[in-house]
Amino acid sequence: MSLSQKILNGDLTAASRLMTDIDEEIDSAIKELKELYPKTGKAWIIGITGSSGVGKSTLVNKMVEAFRSGSKTVGVIAVDPTSPFSGGAILGDRVRMQSHSTDEGVFIRSLATRGHLGGISRSTHDIIKVMDAMGKDSIFVETVGVGQDEVDIVNAADTTIVVLVPGLGDSIQAMKAGVLEIGDIFVINKCEREGADRLEQELSFMLQTGDNRSDDWTIPIYRTEALKGVGINKLMLGIHRHQEMLNRKGLRQQREKERVKIEFLEILRSSLMNKLLQKLSQNGNLDRMLETIAKRERDPYTVVEEIIQNILP
Amino acid sequence: MSLSQKILNGDLTAASRLMTDIDEEIDSAIKELKELYPKTGKAWIIGITGSSGVGKSTLVNKMVEAFRSGSKTVGVIAVDPTSPFSGGAILGDRVRMQSHSTDEGVFIRSLATRGHLGGISRSTHDIIKVMDAMGKDSIFVETVGVGQDEVDIVNAADTTIVVLVPGLGDSIQAMKAGVLEIGDIFVINKCEREGADRLEQELSFMLQTGDNRSDDWTIPIYRTEALKGVGINKLMLGIHRHQEMLNRKGLRQQREKERVKIEFLEILRSSLMNKLLQKLSQNGNLDRMLETIAKRERDPYTVVEEIIQNILP
Repeated sequence: MSLSQKILNGDLTAASRLMTDIDEEIDSAIKELKELYPKTGKAWIIGITGSSGVGKSTLVNKMVEAFRSGSKTVGVIAVDPTSPFSGGAILGDRVRMQSHSTDEGVFIRSLATRGHLGGISRSTHDIIKVMDAMGKDSIFVETVGVGQDEVDIVNAADTTIVVLVPGLGDSIQAMKAGVLEIGDIFVINKCEREGADRLEQELSFMLQTGDNRSDDWTIPIYRTEALKGVGINKLMLGIHRHQEMLNRKGLRQQREKERVKIEFLEILRSSLMNKLLQKLSQNGNLDRMLETIAKRERDPYTVVEEIIQNILP
Repeated sequence: MSLSQKILNGDLTAASRLMTDIDEEIDSAIKELKELYPKTGKAWIIGITGSSGVGKSTLVNKMVEAFRSGSKTVGVIAVDPTSPFSGGAILGDRVRMQSHSTDEGVFIRSLATRGHLGGISRSTHDIIKVMDAMGKDSIFVETVGVGQDEVDIVNAADTTIVVLVPGLGDSIQAMKAGVLEIGDIFVINKCEREGADRLEQELSFMLQTGDNRSDDWTIPIYRTEALKGVGINKLMLGIHRHQEMLNRKGLRQQREKERVKIEFLEILRSSLMNKLLQKLSQNGNLDRMLETIAKRERDPYTVVEEIIQNILP
């Protein structure tokens, strides 16, 4: 039986194995992904983003609990290098998360790798596909939301949650850089801290003035104290309301289309560059080209134009 | 006279103009960059990276002062969305930086845009080229060093400085994600804060155990209190020592080669995708493709293979 068939039969080991193959860019992974593709498109994808230290993982942990108590199956993908899920942070968090590790309805996967050819974005999309085909009802994708890749990932979610905490001076500033526009729901975590009121006011003001959404959705701000589980139920209701709104207005389909486009371009970009570099590297051609450019005998813009002219006349 | 000729004659307005054209991806910018290219390759590129809030901009500010007092000309490029240079942060910093704004030997440019087709990485490289052609002796490139694009940028520097502060719990964790490997020089800024000793010990331990550099460079750790100018002279000496080491061992040339390769691939990737998307979009072809993929009638992996087979048989 192929890996993908095993995965469709509920084999968790096979799923882990395929995700590792995706991470390591093993060619056969593509074959499996092709087979899984018709079974995808059902999971609700929830992007969760915010600076490191705002408590994203604790929050995800509590939301997973809430989904599980409603018998929903959940996938979690951590693309945040500082996330406990990806093994980057303090032991306490990791232990805390282990409460789910014996629960078959929860599948957790971290993306530790960065910098391989396809980019973090492509492997994330591929791993979402696997979890989607596994039949997970909801899939959380956790990122720090700074790099463009990460914004792309979260941008492709059905519901995007932006997490802030009081007292991180740069939180509002960071949002200016694009995160503000992508949030469907905002969470002020660690809301017991001083400055929560002021942060909510500032945020609320920015959301009102910057609001030119076409979907009539009023972006809610929730306050949570994730460690103690405070505010999680309201947040879950918020996610549910957003989900209903998208479904009611037929906007889910629109988001799915945008996601398909982002994924497609990602696959095209990485596959094309791999293939082209393979071709260019033959007989040391690429090295010679780079040599003449490094010596300033030629410029990279003209060399690129010639290559493209050759393959896309 | 062309923009590039004006730039080579020292016209600062022309330089700003070209940088704006690069930011906005105006086609004619490529023509100017081609003309400038032979005049590049001389500037010493200093990457400076670290989480937001560690004081990178203040540090750069002080280093610029130091370079200027030695009559060196300097360029500063801020690709950090939370940087005061890119207008993202508190007014105080911006005012502080204005001390250089009337100094013709300093050219400051921020990259506010994110997410346009070429990526932040390509425009940064192009803007470095302009400053290099302008004859700047040193060019600082400031990033938060989280996204892959940003790691690429800093990775392509001659000297890379990683800035940390005591008391940001995740600083060591963040480094695990790749920043540790790219630093030539480490700075513990705000070293008057509690925890500076412990951070230095941890860092020193990690640098010793993780050290498998081929260049025999012992990575130094400097302590600074940038706001007060404390420790800047020693840091400047450190940069100078690193520069001397690279020159002495012929490694500067090697870094230049790596940089040329990264830039070349970046230009190739973005130009190729632009051209290909233009072609694919003709007659609504791309939309139809995406439609069938969204409906799960076809999978994106096979569609991409067919496209590539077509142009790179």
